This record gives sequence, structure tokens and C-alpha cells, in this order.
Amino acid sequence: MTQTMTRPTTDAATDHAEVLQATLVELIELGLQAKQAHWNLVGPTFKPLHEFLDEMTDEYRGWYDTVAERLAAIDVAPDGRTTTLAESAPFDQLPAGFLSIDKVIVLFDERVSAVAKRIRQRIDRLDDVDLISQDILIEIGHGIEKQRWMLRAHARG
Amino acid sequence: MTQTMTRPTTDAATDHAEVLQATLVELIELGLQAKQAHWNLVGPTFKPLHEFLDEMTDEYRGWYDTVAERLAAIDVAPDGRTTTLAESAPFDQLPAGFLSIDKVIVLFDERVSAVAKRIRQRIDRLDDVDLISQDILIEIGHGIEKQRWMLRAHARG
Amino acid sequence: MTQTMTRPTTDAATDHAEVLQATLVELIELGLQAKQAHWNLVGPTFKPLHEFLDEMTDEYRGWYDTVAERLAAIDVAPDGRTTTLAESAPFDQLPAGFLSIDKVIVLFDERVSAVAKRIRQRIDRLDDVDLISQDILIEIGHGIEKQRWMLRAHARG
Amino acid sequence: MTQTMTRPTTDAATDHAEVLQATLVELIELGLQAKQAHWNLVGPTFKPLHEFLDEMTDEYRGWYDTVAERLAAIDVAPDGRTTTLAESAPFDQLPAGFLSIDKVIVLFDERVSAVAKRIRQRIDRLDDVDLISQDILIEIGHGIEKQRWMLRAHARG
Amino acid sequence: MTQTMTRPTTDAATDHAEVLQATLVELIELGLQAKQAHWNLVGPTFKPLHEFLDEMTDEYRGWYDTVAERLAAIDVAPDGRTTTLAESAPFDQLPAGFLSIDKVIVLFDERVSAVAKRIRQRIDRLDDVDLISQDILIEIGHGIEKQRWMLRAHARG
Amino acid sequence: MTQTMTRPTTDAATDHAEVLQATLVELIELGLQAKQAHWNLVGPTFKPLHEFLDEMTDEYRGWYDTVAERLAAIDVAPDGRTTTLAESAPFDQLPAGFLSIDKVIVLFDERVSAVAKRIRQRIDRLDDVDLISQDILIEIGHGIEKQRWMLRAHARG
Amino acid sequence: MTQTMTRPTTDAATDHAEVLQATLVELIELGLQAKQAHWNLVGPTFKPLHEFLDEMTDEYRGWYDTVAERLAAIDVAPDGRTTTLAESAPFDQLPAGFLSIDKVIVLFDERVSAVAKRIRQRIDRLDDVDLISQDILIEIGHGIEKQRWMLRAHARG
Amino acid sequence: MTQTMTRPTTDAATDHAEVLQATLVELIELGLQAKQAHWNLVGPTFKPLHEFLDEMTDEYRGWYDTVAERLAAIDVAPDGRTTTLAESAPFDQLPAGFLSIDKVIVLFDERVSAVAKRIRQRIDRLDDVDLISQDILIEIGHGIEKQRWMLRAHARG
Amino acid sequence: MTQTMTRPTTDAATDHAEVLQATLVELIELGLQAKQAHWNLVGPTFKPLHEFLDEMTDEYRGWYDTVAERLAAIDVAPDGRTTTLAESAPFDQLPAGFLSIDKVIVLFDERVSAVAKRIRQRIDRLDDVDLISQDILIEIGHGIEKQRWMLRAHARG
Amino acid sequence: MTQTMTRPTTDAATDHAEVLQATLVELIELGLQAKQAHWNLVGPTFKPLHEFLDEMTDEYRGWYDTVAERLAAIDVAPDGRTTTLAESAPFDQLPAGFLSIDKVIVLFDERVSAVAKRIRQRIDRLDDVDLISQDILIEIGHGIEKQRWMLRAHARG
Amino acid sequence: MTQTMTRPTTDAATDHAEVLQATLVELIELGLQAKQAHWNLVGPTFKPLHEFLDEMTDEYRGWYDTVAERLAAIDVAPDGRTTTLAESAPFDQLPAGFLSIDKVIVLFDERVSAVAKRIRQRIDRLDDVDLISQDILIEIGHGIEKQRWMLRAHARG
Amino acid sequence: MTQTMTRPTTDAATDHAEVLQATLVELIELGLQAKQAHWNLVGPTFKPLHEFLDEMTDEYRGWYDTVAERLAAIDVAPDGRTTTLAESAPFDQLPAGFLSIDKVIVLFDERVSAVAKRIRQRIDRLDDVDLISQDILIEIGHGIEKQRWMLRAHARG
Repeated sequence: MTQTMTRPTTDAATDHAEVLQATLVELIELGLQAKQAHWNLVGPTFKPLHEFLDEMTDEYRGWYDTVAERLAAIDVAPDGRTTTLAESAPFDQLPAGFLSIDKVIVLFDERVSAVAKRIRQRIDRLDDVDLISQDILIEIGHGIEKQRWMLRAHARG
Repeated sequence: MTQTMTRPTTDAATDHAEVLQATLVELIELGLQAKQAHWNLVGPTFKPLHEFLDEMTDEYRGWYDTVAERLAAIDVAPDGRTTTLAESAPFDQLPAGFLSIDKVIVLFDERVSAVAKRIRQRIDRLDDVDLISQDILIEIGHGIEKQRWMLRAHARG
Repeated sequence: MTQTMTRPTTDAATDHAEVLQATLVELIELGLQAKQAHWNLVGPTFKPLHEFLDEMTDEYRGWYDTVAERLAAIDVAPDGRTTTLAESAPFDQLPAGFLSIDKVIVLFDERVSAVAKRIRQRIDRLDDVDLISQDILIEIGHGIEKQRWMLRAHARG
Repeated sequence: MTQTMTRPTTDAATDHAEVLQATLVELIELGLQAKQAHWNLVGPTFKPLHEFLDEMTDEYRGWYDTVAERLAAIDVAPDGRTTTLAESAPFDQLPAGFLSIDKVIVLFDERVSAVAKRIRQRIDRLDDVDLISQDILIEIGHGIEKQRWMLRAHARG
Repeated sequence: MTQTMTRPTTDAATDHAEVLQATLVELIELGLQAKQAHWNLVGPTFKPLHEFLDEMTDEYRGWYDTVAERLAAIDVAPDGRTTTLAESAPFDQLPAGFLSIDKVIVLFDERVSAVAKRIRQRIDRLDDVDLISQDILIEIGHGIEKQRWMLRAHARG
Repeated sequence: MTQTMTRPTTDAATDHAEVLQATLVELIELGLQAKQAHWNLVGPTFKPLHEFLDEMTDEYRGWYDTVAERLAAIDVAPDGRTTTLAESAPFDQLPAGFLSIDKVIVLFDERVSAVAKRIRQRIDRLDDVDLISQDILIEIGHGIEKQRWMLRAHARG
Repeated sequence: MTQTMTRPTTDAATDHAEVLQATLVELIELGLQAKQAHWNLVGPTFKPLHEFLDEMTDEYRGWYDTVAERLAAIDVAPDGRTTTLAESAPFDQLPAGFLSIDKVIVLFDERVSAVAKRIRQRIDRLDDVDLISQDILIEIGHGIEKQRWMLRAHARG
Repeated sequence: MTQTMTRPTTDAATDHAEVLQATLVELIELGLQAKQAHWNLVGPTFKPLHEFLDEMTDEYRGWYDTVAERLAAIDVAPDGRTTTLAESAPFDQLPAGFLSIDKVIVLFDERVSAVAKRIRQRIDRLDDVDLISQDILIEIGHGIEKQRWMLRAHARG
Repeated sequence: MTQTMTRPTTDAATDHAEVLQATLVELIELGLQAKQAHWNLVGPTFKPLHEFLDEMTDEYRGWYDTVAERLAAIDVAPDGRTTTLAESAPFDQLPAGFLSIDKVIVLFDERVSAVAKRIRQRIDRLDDVDLISQDILIEIGHGIEKQRWMLRAHARG
Repeated sequence: MTQTMTRPTTDAATDHAEVLQATLVELIELGLQAKQAHWNLVGPTFKPLHEFLDEMTDEYRGWYDTVAERLAAIDVAPDGRTTTLAESAPFDQLPAGFLSIDKVIVLFDERVSAVAKRIRQRIDRLDDVDLISQDILIEIGHGIEKQRWMLRAHARG
Repeated sequence: MTQTMTRPTTDAATDHAEVLQATLVELIELGLQAKQAHWNLVGPTFKPLHEFLDEMTDEYRGWYDTVAERLAAIDVAPDGRTTTLAESAPFDQLPAGFLSIDKVIVLFDERVSAVAKRIRQRIDRLDDVDLISQDILIEIGHGIEKQRWMLRAHARG
Repeated sequence: MTQTMTRPTTDAATDHAEVLQATLVELIELGLQAKQAHWNLVGPTFKPLHEFLDEMTDEYRGWYDTVAERLAAIDVAPDGRTTTLAESAPFDQLPAGFLSIDKVIVLFDERVSAVAKRIRQRIDRLDDVDLISQDILIEIGHGIEKQRWMLRAHARG
């Protein structure tokens, strides 16, 4: 890092809030979708995937709480309202109704990979802006890429 | 109860699912709004109300999981997707931005009272339809009316 | 249930509060009497009955807290004051001084059976009034009839 | 409920005990069969189903203890003896020997569905007889219908 | 201490029991009043005071159990019956109905201060009578003076 | 041990499975009978014996799970089905109805002593067959002989 | 207290150590005797008294550890060796062999009462010597007089 | 980061130790001041703020232990002595005596904001010096900025 | 105690507060020094002494919290500010830099012995002033004299 | 056992150590291979097998710690160094890279069966040498044959 | 094993009880001596050895409880009375007074080695007598030889 | 950081995997060596160092699991096989046989220092490659440098 972080310009401050707010929306949305899949899952290996989706939900809930409180800590009001999710989440809703195991794995691999990629880009964007928020995203990125591995491991072999 | 419950007509079956689905949507929406208020609260008694909103969120999460799994148990796919929430939740979003303590108490008294009232009506509707689902709503109604008392107790005296 | 519960008349509302208030008084009184017996018990099987009376006290304390908070939730001030207990509890005080094991079993069988009977009648009265409060009494009735069995099992065989 | 429950006729009392005793036998039998399948299971998803059958066993054990103690509380001796099970359980023994995963899911779907259906009928029968015992069966019915969903979710998709 | 404690006169023995019995009555009464206030509290800082009154109740329950068992240990039957409380508790009942936060703080400051003062006097009285019972009162006095500080801290600043 | 255990003949293998299967049946049967007595007990020392029978049930359940899984580990399907119990358990069913304390102690002393004796004989039979299965029986024998002591200690003095 | 405690004469120091050492011996001896009775108890209410003796043993072990470490803290080597116990414990060994319930209650009432009396005398002796050690004995005296009450409550009624 | 961190010059090493030592002093001082305020707080919302100050103390204690052990790990003796605190802590002592709630919030907002700002500058300074120590400061900065948010939320609305 | 404690003169009140305030300062200072030694310790038995110093810190923290809250309970503002410690603590700061094991044992034996001695004198001073505060000091004196034994045991043999 | 075990010849001692050392090497190697498979597993039932391999690792770690400490207890230095493993482990390394579920089950069935067989032979060898070490191997043999059953159950049906 | 164990002669029965009774005495004596050393230890590594002696005491207490209850289970009254210990324990009392670390290690190595040796001989003696009691001694032997290793490891290097 | 991390060249990807794989090997090897030393340690302060080596083992096991799962998360098969360890671990095996305390401290200081140094270099290498993996190494570096301090503290003073 060749520039000091102590005097971010207004643009940096905007960038900072945008990055966290966008992450907040995606994690709440993933949390709701993982619960939706947890309830609607069907298929011969129902039990372990049903439970894995619950563990994923718990991780999203913990992560988005941290992100929202970070927004408040930099004096920006976090926005996790349903209409905000419906308008700004960058991936589709799950299809209605029961979902087969293969379908769930494909759908979550798409979503989790997309979020993992965007979080990587945001880690870059925060590098000259705020190392504390960056550190939060690094931890979330670590977790979400581990989820991606586990989802993909189901589809291989 | 003068009629047997063992042969509900198709209408009863529809009623059954509708009642649970409508409750599911309201409880998920309340859970998101309680978290939103938890993050955006400001005012001289911040700390205990901030924590109370978190306890309320935990209660909503436990209750809507039970309702969704009950839907699955009667072979109906539960729908807790964001767009469904945005379309069918019967009360407004919270206003954007930070929220004063008095405002939060008024807004949640409105929402919690409205849901408590609807749950009472649904308990009636389920009486000749399904005593198991009714029992779930009775327990949720018990909890939500206790939340209403606690919210109102802040506004009195 | 052939009548809807959603529009209870004023009388029903009065009935509702009376039923809960009367139960509150009896449970607090039973809690105090079980502690009194816990301290004053004497006899060859002192230890297990001494501990059973303590478990009974814990059950009464949990139950009357639920009943009192239910009264507050329907906007009626619960009254668990000593003078109210002294005036309205429908069974006698325990005799002063140390109490033999047989005496304690007889005295509590009388009191617990009487309260169990009144709770059954109140469950009936609440049927067209409030299913949530009825559910609370059903749970208490379940517990108190189990206590009665255990007390009586000591006196048989 | 248009009749009072406080003076059940002798027939009601008989009905009451019969309903609980029949439920007791079925739940003990299901508990033994779930353990039997837990030990004899074979197939590619052995581990999670092996564990699920153990969780089911724990649920049956908790439920039949409650039912038996309820019988004692209404002064009827519960009968959970092996010969009673062998004579009165209304479904077949499991086949001897190791059992494939598909076989286990089919066999338990049959048994669990049959018991769930009978418990629903008994909930009806208890409506004018005893709301406390009814409440116990409602809770068991809730759990057993959730087991049925989970079993069926394995066979779909 | 210039006198031996090993041969208390009859008066001392009477004094000993009186001191413990009077403390028992006051602590049970305080426990019932703290619960009564816990249920009937209203006002803008409801939640933390509602919880503080519950912690106080738990302390009273622990303390009066110790005092009653100490009476039994010196071979005197403890008397914690409602009529005894109603006759001998040296402070008024709480007013009926809901209670504002300021009111609760004033009422409990009065009661807690009065009991704290009497316990100090009893610690003196026990000095030549029984150091074990004195030690129990010292511990209770420590706790009750800490409660008084916390109540008063609410009314200052 | 003067013979090697590594090449048991076919007869030894049969012996091995028979010993474990016979133990399995007896322990499941004892577990059911201890529960039956737990529910039907009456008499002046009801509470501690009621609880002791529950502890015994827990021990039987733990032991027969180990024995059944040991059968599976040596590639023999364990048989714990009700009809198998009814046909092969080597002691009588308990009498129907409530059971006095003295009766329960006599009945269980008989059953527990008989099983303890057979387990000792099986420990002998396994000595040249399989030291791992023998070790399992030694642990169960240890526990069951401790139960016998405790039952008998009630009947002496 | 009319004399200062800061300059105890040599005699006081000797007194201090003697008091603690004598208490140490009695408590270790009581601990061994309670275990001995725990193992050798017989009679119809075996189970709860068997367990009560174990709780007493745990109390003695906790208390004598505190006393021995207090001796070390005042720079005197504590002596809890078997030969010391055999020589200086001021009450008899238990009789050999199994012990009936009545016998155990009588024997422990004697021993516990004797130790309780001596501890009271030592509390007096320490009053001008060391308030810290006195406080330890007050706590032990409290516990041991509670044991005495419980033992005696078995023999009354 | 465009320079390698593996060969810090002597100045970097000095910088490294200075940054950690300065942070150590500030965190110990904040811990002592939070305890001081915890004890001296007065005002109508005493209880929740009293507890919040205790949680803050626990956080400071955990953080300064990590910083001090990091100093030791880079072979520099940490200095957390009182005289060092008195000389080098860069903010004033709290005023003596009891402190109103508003006063406490203003005083801690000043102090926490000042430390948060200095920690941000130190995070910058460590960027080319030691990423491990930087990571420790990032975590502390995260926590201290969250404390600042919570303090400020009390003063708004 | 030949004088009543209920009417302490003003001097007694002053004495009371002085005794507690002086103890507060010494215990906070000891807590900081034990942490300082915990970090700076070097020598062949580093690990257990490093941990023992941490246990000592925890004890000081618990004790000084009790003392400070006792001051507040008698309506005197406790003063645990750094400048107060620097001015009034009656023993030297630890030397700067790493500290050998022998050095630490000598330094802490000095400080702990000095505080133990002063606490004994204060226990005397409080005897006619306040038995509750005296009881707090007796407990602390017990603990600190046990620490002294353990420190000295390292230096003997 | 017709020979005494108290005077093993030198050969027996050598045998004793060899048996334990060989077991140590195999269990450490199995532990490393189970972790390797835990990380490299791929396939549709990834999650439960991934977790089962972790449970197996925990079992190996517990077992080899016991074996190594047993070697130390008989005064022989245990050797669990990597080069020792590479030279003396009696089965192949796992293939490099990701591993399908079927492959993992086959590979571990081979290894676990081979070790189970060798442990049975060693149990024989220790019979006249050391019953304590034999008992350790019996417990490990019990566990490893249970693992073998569970692995094989996946491959059947 | 070439002889059956099912019909031990009278001598075998005597042997059985003697072996357990002798072990009981040694383990209680070791427990008392480990506590005695725990209190009287002095020397530069006081803390970890002081704690290790406490862990050893806990092991002896667990082991002798098992042995005594085994005696009761075979219908022999266990004798753990002080005079029995003083007469029959086969090793000397510890010397009076404080004990250096080296001394403690030597004294306990002697005692633990002697008991370990005798337990090995008793394992032999029980081989044709009772495999259940033998198994208890094998487990104790395992533990006591591990203690011996740890004691000796202190004296080497 | 002046370059974006989102498009690492193939070389960066290779670098990334190499860094993690090399760390994996070193941490598994350290874990095995710490266990080896835990078992073979001898010397006068055996107990605390024996336990410290176990804590180190636990830390290595936790860290290498994280590193291996990170490799899998970036789609590279982790290689923790024994032959890989034997070939690529960059430090020697421990000498065979028992190890004195001083020897263990020297050997582990060498190894831990070498790994700490390499991890610092790898943190640098990952700076433009992957901040998530870098963050994992920063945490491990933090822990391993703390281990180094503790090892060295034993060798000083």
C-alpha cells in the first residue's frame, strides 16, 4: 500500500459505504434463499444437505450482522429492508416449489460463486479506503469460498 | 368442536395452506424489520432496546422455521422468497435511515398488534381444519402478544 | 367449537381475567406452601420428599410467572400481593410447626387435587374465550395432574 | 366445543384410556423398529440415515414416556410389556436381516403414515373427553408428521 | 467479643430464633413484591428495570431459603406462611395495578432501606448469640445494601 | 489362554453370534420391563425407586446398543424385534397393573440375578472365541452385578 | 472485641494451629466414615441415603482442603496422615460390615453433632486470634449444622 | 504493498515497538477508566450503561493482553506500569466522584474517538513494517469503532 | 464486640471509607503489576509461573470490584484512577524490562506480604465500624495469604 | 492363561514393545490418511463422509496417544517420527489428488481391515505378556472393527 | 484359560475378596498421602507438581470407589476405615512436615511402583477367579503405571 | 497495494498453491514432532512442558486443517501424505529416544523460528496474489511467533 488511508476523499467514503451496503444485500438474500432451499429440498440424500443449508444460513446471518454493524460504525444507516433486497440483489430468486438436490447444488454454486467473485473485487476496492472493513470482507470471502468448495465437491467424483 | 376433523374438504386443505403461508410471510418480514431496527436505532436507551430487538429477531426466526416445516409436513412447498415478501406482506417497510427509540416503539407496536390480530383470526379458521397447525399458531400467538405487552409497557407510565 | 372467538363480549373479557387471576393466586399460594413443607418436613424418607417439594416449588414459580405475564399481555394488572393471597386462596394454610411425611402427602394431595379440578373447569370456561390462555392452563393442568399421581403413588402399594 | 368436559361418562373414561394405551403400544413398537433398522441398515448413504433413525428412536422414547405417565396420572396402569406389543401393535414386524436404504424408507413411510393417521383420529376422539391428553397427542402428531415429511423427502426429486 | 458464645441463656436462644424468623418474613415478602412490580411495571426504561426486579427476586429466594434452613438447623420450625406474612411484615403492600418506573424506584428504595437497617440491628443482636447465623445476615446485608445502591443510582444524576 | 484366537472354527463363529444375540434379547427385554415398573410403581418410597428404575433403563439401552453394533461388526444381523423378544426372552413378563415396591425389588432381583449368571457363563464361552466381545460382556456384567447389589441392599438391613 | 488481634502472643499462635489441625483431622475422618457408610449401607430406603452420604463426603473433602491450605498459609505443616487420624480422631471407628439405615443415622448424628459442638467452641477460641481462620470455621459450622438437621429430620415424625 | 516486509530497517523495528507500546498504554488506561465509570455512574438508565461499561472493560483487557504478548513476541519488554500510564496516556483522567449518564457518554465518546483515530494512523504506519501486528490493530480498531457507534447512538435520536 | 455498631460517629464513617479506598488502590495496583510480570517473565519454569500470575490477576480484579462496589453502597465514590494509584500506592513500581523467575517471586512476596499485613490491620479497624465491610476484607485476606504461601513455597525446599 | 505374567523373559519384553510400536505406527499413518481423504473427497454424498473421516481421525489420534503413553509407561521411547512411518507402515500411501467416494470406501476398507487383523494377532501375542497393554489393544480393536462395519455398510445394499 | 471360572471354590472366593480389599486399602492410603504431599510441598517448581498431586488424588478417589462398590457387588463388606488403613497399608506414612520436590518424587515413585507391582500380581491371581474384577484392576493398573512414568520422567534427563 | 489482485497470472496461481502446500507440510510435520517430544520428554519440569507440547500440537492441527481446506477451496488437492512430508519438510527429524527438557527447547526454537521466518516470507509473496490466503498465514504467523516467545522465555533469565 503506497498511499496513506487516513484521509480518504469523499469518493472513498462513498465507495466504502457502497461496498458494505452491496455486500449486506447479497448476504441477507443468500440467507433467505438458503432457508428456502432448506425447507423445499427433496431427494435421496435429503438429510445431510438439509442440514448443510442450515449451517450456511447461520453463517450468512452472522456475516451480515457484522457488515450492518460496520456500516453503523462508519455512521451510515444500513439498509436491509425487503424492498431493497428485491430491487438490488444481483441474482435471481429461487424457483417456486420443491427443489431436487442436484438443482439446489447448481443454483447455489452459481450464487455463491458470483458473490465470492464480487467480494474479491470489493476487497480490492477497499484496499486504499479502509483496512478494517477490508478485513471483514476477507473473513467473509474465506468462508464463502469454503462453502463453494463444499458445494462443488458434491458435483464431482 | 362438533365436526370431525378427519375429512377436511379441499377448501379446508386450501385454507390450511393459506393460513400457514400468510403467517410465514409475516414472520419473515417481521424478522427482517426487527434486525433493521436493531441496526438503525438511536436514542438515550439504545442498549436495552437494541438487545430486545435482537431477542425478537431470534423469536421470529424460530417461529417461521416451525411454520415452514409444518407446510412441508402437509406436503405444500413453503414460499419465503424475497419477492413473495415484497408482494404479500401486509404492512409497510420501515422508513430508511436511523430510527429514534419512540419511533421504533410506535412502528413495532403497530406491526406486532396487526400480526397478533391476524394470528387470532387464523387460530379460529384452523379450528375445524387442523388442530396441529392451530397449536403451532397458538404458541406463536402467545409469544407475539407477550412482545406487544413489552413494547407497550415502554410507552406507558 | 361452534362459535367464533374473535368477538368476545365484555363478559367474556371479564371471565378471561378472572380465570387467570384466580389461577395466579392458587399457584403462588401452592408455591409458598410447598416451600413451607420443604423446610418443616420430618420423617424416615425425609431426603427424597424434601427434594420433591423443591421441584414442585420450581414448577409453581414457573407456572405463575407465565400466568401473570399473560394477564399483563391482555392488559390486566396481575395481583399477586400477600393480602390478596390471604383473602382469596381457596384452601387453608398449612398447620404451624414440623410436619410428618404422611401428613404432608395428605395435605398436598388435598390441595393439588382441588387446584387440578378447578383448572379443568377453567379450561372449559376459556374454550369460547381465548385459546391462548386455555393452552397455558392445559399445560399447567398436565403438570399438576402429574404431581397428583406422584403424591398418590406414595400412599398406595 | 359445545359440551362441558368436566363430567365425562364412563364411556368417555374408557375411551380416554384406550386412546392413550393404543398410542403407547404403537410408539414403543416404532421405537424398537427404528433401533432395529438403525443396526441393520446398508447402502451408499448409510451414515446420515443411520443417525436419523437414532434421532427418531429418541423421539419415540420421549413421547411414549409422556403417554405412559399420562395414563398413570389418570389412574390407569400403562401396559408396555412385550407380549402386549406383540399382540396389539397394528403393523408388521420388520423383515429379519440387513435392510437396504430404499427398503427402510418405504417401510418407515408406511408405518409412520399409518400411526400419524391414527393419531389424528384419536385427537378427534379426545376432543370431548380430555383436552390435556389431546394436547399431548397434538404434540406427538406434530412430530410424527414432520418425520413423515423427512422420510418422504428422501424418496422424491 | 469478651463473652463466650457457648452457653447462651434461654433469652439468647429466643432472640436467635426471633431474629431469623423476622428476617425470613421480610425476605419472602420482598420477593413477592419484587415479582409483583416485575409484572406491573410501565415506563420508558421498562426492559432493564423489569429484568433487574427479576434478579432481585432470585436473590430474595436464595436468601430466605438459607434463613429458613438455618432455623431448622437450630431446631426451630420456620414460618413462611401467607397469613404470617400478612400479619407480621413491617411494611405496606404495593398499590394495586400498573406501576410507573419512578414509583417502583421510590417504593423499593423505602422497603430495601428499611430492611437493610433492621438487618444491621439484627447483626448486632446476634453478636453474642450465634456467629454462624450472624454470618448469614452479614452476607444478606451485603447484598441488600448493594441493591439499595443500584436503586438509588437510578434516582440520581 | 492356551489356544490362539485367530482361527476360530465355524462352530466358534456360531457360538460367538449366539452369545451376543441372546444377550441382546435379554437386555432389550430388561429395558422394557424396567420402564414398565417405572410407570407402575406404588408405595411409600416411590420417588427414589421410580428414578432408579429410569437409570437402569438408560443402562440397558446403552448396553444393548453396544451389543447390537458388535453383532453388525462381526457381520451378523442383530435381531431385536418384538416377536423375537416374546419368543426367546428367558424370563416372564411382569404382572399387569400397578406394582408395590417390595414386589418390584423381588421381581428385578430374580431377573437381574438370572441375567448376571448367564452373562458370566457367556464370558467363559467367549474366552477362546473373541476377546473383544468378551470385553463387552465383562463391562456389562460389571454393571449388572452392581445393579443387583443395589437392589438387594434395599431388601436387607 | 476489646483487644487488638495484631499481636497475638505465642500461645495464641499455638492455639491457632491447634484449632485448625484438630479440625483437619476430624473432617478427614468424617469423610472416610461417610464413604465407608456409603458402601456398606443396607435397608429399604437405601438409594437416597446412599446418595446423601456421597454428598456429605464431597462437602468434607472441600472443607478439609480449605483448612489444610489455611494451615500452610500461616506457615504450619498440616498433618492429615492416617496414623495421625488413627491416634487423634475424637470419635470411634464405624463398626465393620454392613450397616442398617437406622444405625447409620444414629452413628452420624453422634459424630456430626460432636464435631459441630467442637467447631462452635473453636469459633470462640479463634475470636481473639485470627478472624480469617474463624471465618473458615463459621462456614464449615454452617454446613455441618445443616447436615445435622437433615440427619435428625430422618429420625423424627 | 510494493515493498517487501522481510527486512525492516532499525527504524522500522523502533516504529513497530513504539506503535504497540503506545497502544498498550491507551488500552490499559481506557480499561481503568471504564471500570471507574462503571462504579461511579448515576442516572435514570443506570443499569444497562453500568453493564455496558463492564463489557467495554472486558474488551480492553482482552485487547491489551494481546498487544503486550505481541511486544514480547517481537522481543521487546511491554511496559504497562502505572507510572508509565500516568506519564504517557494521551487523554485526561476522569473527574473524581459520581458521574451522570450524559457526562459518561460525552467523556467516553471523546476518549474512544481519539484512540480510534490514533489506531487508524498506526495501522498505516505498520503497513510496511509488520502485517501481523497490523492485523492485531485492525481487529482492535474494528472493536473500538463499534464501541464508538454504540456510545454515539445513545446521544442521538 | 462490646459496643453496638449501629451508630458509628462521623470518624467511624471516615475510617470506613478510608479503609476501603486504601484497599482498592492496593488491589488495582497489584493487578497491574501481576499482569506486567506475566508478560515480562523469563526463566526455566516460565510456563506455570506465567499462568499463576494470570490467576493472581483474576483474583485481584474480582476483589477490587467488590471493594469499589462496597464503597458505592455506603455512598462514597470509589477512586481507582491512574493518578490516584501513582500517588497513593504504598509500594514501588516493578523495574522495567524482562524479569527473572527468582526476581518475580521476591518482588511479589514483598508486595503481597505488605498488603496482607495492612489488610489484617484494617480488619481490626473495621471491627467496631462495619461488619459487612470487615467480612469483605476477611475474604480478601484469606485469598491473599494463600497467594503468599504459594509464592513462598516456590522459594523453599 | 496357564502361565504367570509376572516374570516375562527378555523376549516377552521385546515382544511387548514391538507390538505397541507397530500399532503406534499404523494408527498415526491411518490418522494422516483419514485427514488426507477428508480434504480430497469428492462426490454426491460428500458431506456425511467428509465428516465421518474427521471422526475417524479423532479416534486414531486418541488411540495412538494411549499407545505411545503406554510405551513410555513401560520405559520404552515411542517412535512416531515421519521417517519411521514412511519406512515401516505396512500399507500404501493414498494416491495423490482428489478422491471419489467409492474409491475412499474401498481404500479405507482395505487399510482398516488389514490393521484390524493385525491387532487381533497382537492381542493374542500379548496374552502371556501384559494384560494391561492387551486391554488397550482390545479397546482399539473394538473401535476399528466398528469402523470397518460402517465403511462396509456403505458398499452394500 | 483352560479352566472354567463359573464354579470358583471357596478359596477362590476368599482370594477374590482379599485381592479387592487389599487394593482398596492401598488406593485410599495413596489418596491420603497424595493430598498430604499436595499441602506440604515446597520447592522451585511448586505449582505444577502441587496440581499433579491433586490430579493423582482425584484418580485414587475414583478408583477406590469402583473397587469398594465391586466388593459390595460380590456381597462382601468393603473396609476402608482408618484403623484398617493404619494396620494393613504395606508402605510407610510420609514423614511429617514440609516436603521438598525431589523428596516427593522419590517417595511417590517408591509407593506407586510398589502398588503397580502388587496390582500386576493381583491381575494374575484373579485370572481364574473373576474376569470382571480383573478388568477393574487392569484399568487401575493402566492408570497407575502411567502415573509412575510421569513421576519418573521428572527424575530423568 | 498498487496492483489489482483480481487477475492473477498463472504464475501467481502457482505461487499461491505452492505457498499453501509448503506451509501445510511444515505444520503437519511440526504437529508430529510436538507429539513425539510430548511422549519422550524427561526432566525435572516435565509436567508443564509435557502439557505445553500438547497445546502446540493442538494449534498445529487446527492450523493445517485450515490451510488444507483453503487449498481445496482454490481447487488444488492438498497433499499431506507421509511420503510427501518425509521428502519435503525443510528441517530434520527429532533424534530417536527420550529427550531432555533443554534439548527439546533448543530443537523446537530452531524449528519454530525457521517456520516463522518462512511464513513471513510467504505473507509477502501472497500480498499481490490472494489476500484471503495471506490472512490465514498472518493468523498462523501470529500464533507461531507467540510459541517462539514462550519457548525462548524458558531459556532466558
